[in-house]
Amino acid sequence: MKRIGKQTLELENECFIIGKSSLVGEKEKNGAFNEYFENYVDDDKMGQKTFEKAERKMLEIITENAIRDANLYKGDIDLYLSGDLTNQIVSSNYVAEILGVPFIGIYSACSTITACLGLATMLIDGGGFNNILCSSISHFSSAERQYRYPLEFGNQRQAYSQWTVTGGGAFVISNKKSNIKITKVCFSKVQDYGVIDIANMGAAMAVAACDTLCSFFDDTNSKPGDYDFIATGDLGKLGSDILRDLMSKKGYDVGQNYSDIGHSIYKFEEESYQGGIGAGCSTCVLATYILDKLKSGVFKKVLIVATGALMSTITNQQGDSIPSIAHLVEIVKC
Amino acid sequence: MKRIGKQTLELENECFIIGKSSLVGEKEKNGAFNEYFENYVDDDKMGQKTFEKAERKMLEIITENAIRDANLYKGDIDLYLSGDLTNQIVSSNYVAEILGVPFIGIYSACSTITACLGLATMLIDGGGFNNILCSSISHFSSAERQYRYPLEFGNQRQAYSQWTVTGGGAFVISNKKSNIKITKVCFSKVQDYGVIDIANMGAAMAVAACDTLCSFFDDTNSKPGDYDFIATGDLGKLGSDILRDLMSKKGYDVGQNYSDIGHSIYKFEEESYQGGIGAGCSTCVLATYILDKLKSGVFKKVLIVATGALMSTITNQQGDSIPSIAHLVEIVKC
Repeated sequence: MKRIGKQTLELENECFIIGKSSLVGEKEKNGAFNEYFENYVDDDKMGQKTFEKAERKMLEIITENAIRDANLYKGDIDLYLSGDLTNQIVSSNYVAEILGVPFIGIYSACSTITACLGLATMLIDGGGFNNILCSSISHFSSAERQYRYPLEFGNQRQAYSQWTVTGGGAFVISNKKSNIKITKVCFSKVQDYGVIDIANMGAAMAVAACDTLCSFFDDTNSKPGDYDFIATGDLGKLGSDILRDLMSKKGYDVGQNYSDIGHSIYKFEEESYQGGIGAGCSTCVLATYILDKLKSGVFKKVLIVATGALMSTITNQQGDSIPSIAHLVEIVKC
Repeated sequence: MKRIGKQTLELENECFIIGKSSLVGEKEKNGAFNEYFENYVDDDKMGQKTFEKAERKMLEIITENAIRDANLYKGDIDLYLSGDLTNQIVSSNYVAEILGVPFIGIYSACSTITACLGLATMLIDGGGFNNILCSSISHFSSAERQYRYPLEFGNQRQAYSQWTVTGGGAFVISNKKSNIKITKVCFSKVQDYGVIDIANMGAAMAVAACDTLCSFFDDTNSKPGDYDFIATGDLGKLGSDILRDLMSKKGYDVGQNYSDIGHSIYKFEEESYQGGIGAGCSTCVLATYILDKLKSGVFKKVLIVATGALMSTITNQQGDSIPSIAHLVEIVKC
C-alpha cells in the first residue's frame, strides 16, 4: 500500500469484496431498506435463552452465509476480523471459536466494520493473505441493557436518542477478482466534542466523522462531489445535521449525495427518534443497499464512514466525556 | 509478507522494535523481575480519583515514554494499536484521544500485545506505515472489580487463581533499523477447553497456547529447541504445567527454555497463587527482561505467545465455557 498525505492509504494491489451477507431484526426489515433486507428474523431471540446468545447465533449465520456467498469453505478463510458492542466483544469471540480460523478481535464500537475492512484490505495488499472475513453486529436488547437501562424498566427515551439496530453483516475481502473493490482507507484519530450524555451519540460522533472526511479530502485532493454516495454510519438526524455544519465550517459542502445510514434506516413512524445506531447499523446497509447499488452501477464510487462512540458505562458514571472515532473506506465499482 | 504453511506469516521487509517502555505497580516491582522494572509506581491510584483513571494515566505515561525512547515525536506515529481489559477498552481509547494519531482498538484480552505487534509488523511490511505504536495494560483493581468481586468484599481466592498484574508496556515498531526485529507472526485460532470457572484462567488458556505453538512449529518445520527462550503470557503455574502435558502429547517437548511469564513474575512469598495474569503481564516483561536479554545477546531468538481468555461476566453468568486465544511473535537479535 502507499500513503497519500498524512492519514490516507491507497492500495497498490487490487482488493475485492467477493462475498457478503446480512441479517436484521423485524423492526429493521420494516424500515426504509425493506426491499434490500432479504434475510431477517421474526424472533429476535432466535430460539435462544438470552439476547446475548441470540446475537451470537445471528452472527454465526451471517458469517456462514458470507463464506458461502463467496463460494468458499471455512478453511479458505485466512483470518477473521470482527467486533461488536458486547463487553469483551463476546459475540465475535464465540463465533470465531465456531469458525476455527485465526482471529483478531477489533473494538471500535459502531465504527467496527470499516476498521475491519480497512485492516483486511491492507493485509491482503501486503501479500500474506488471500481471503479475510470481516463482520460486525449489534442487537437492541443486549446493547440497551448493557449500556443503558434494564429492558423491563421501560425508560422514557430522550428526543435526541437513537435506536440500536438489531442486525449485522459480513464481508469476504479477497485478492480474487469481483466487480467491487476497496481502493482507499483512512483510519481515524479519536475525537472528543465534550458530550457526556450517553443518549446523545450523534452529537458525540459527528466531530470524528468530520475530522476523518476532511483529512481524507485534504490528503487525496478530492471533494464530496467526486463521489456518488457518501454515507456516515449512525449519526442520526441530529448528528448528521451537526456534521453538515462542521463540514461547511471547514469549507466542504457534503451536498445531496451525503446520507447518514442511522438517519435513513427506520421509517419515521417507527419511533426511533434520531434514527438507528449500533455496530450492525452501517454494516447491514453496506452489505445490502450500498453493494446492490454498486453492483448495478447506480453508484460507481462511494465513501463509507462508520462512526463509533468509545465510552463505557464506567467512564460515563465517572464523568468522562465521550471519545469518538470514524474509520473510512472508499469502495468502487470496476 | 509471505505465508508459510497454514497459519504462519514471515516478513519480507525488515521490521524493528525501535522504542519501548513499561510501568508497573509496587507488587510487580517487588517480584522476580525487580531489577528489570526500572519504572514503577508506589501509588497504584496515580493521584487519580478512580482505579480506571489511574490505569489510563499509567498508559499515557507508558506511551509517551515509548515514543521518546524511539527518538520520535507523537506526530511521527502513523498508527496506534492498543487494547486492555476494561469494558470497551476505554484505557486505550482515552489515551488514543490524547495521542491524537490514527487508532485501531484491539480486544484480545491478555493476548493483546502480540495481536498488536503481529498486526503492526504486517502493516509496516506492507509499506504504508513507518512507525506504529503498540501498547497494552492491566490494573489489578480495575480488572478485579470488573470481572470478579468488589474490592471491598475481600473474597477468599481459590488456590488455582492468578493475580492481575498492575502494569503495561508499549513498543514502537518501525522500518527504521535497530538490533531487535520481529520476523514471524502466527495469529491464533480460538480454542475452548470447556473450563467455566473464571478463577481458573490458566487451564482455559493452555489449549490455545498449545494450538498456536504446534501450528507454528508445524508450519515452519522448527522445534522448541531452536529457540533460546519461549515464553507464554500468563498461564500461571497450573496452566503452564497443563501446556507442557498438552505439548508433549503432540510430540513436542518445550524443554528448559520454556517459561511462563505469569508463573515467573511474582515471588512465591507474594501470595499470588498460580502467578500473574492480565493484558500487562507479558507486555511489561517483554518490554524489560526479554528485550534486555535480546539486546545484550543472551537471547538470540525468542517466541512470545501471549495468552488471552475471551469471556465476559455475562457469558460466565449465562453458563458459557471460556474461549481462549494465543497470538505468537518471533523476535530475533540482529
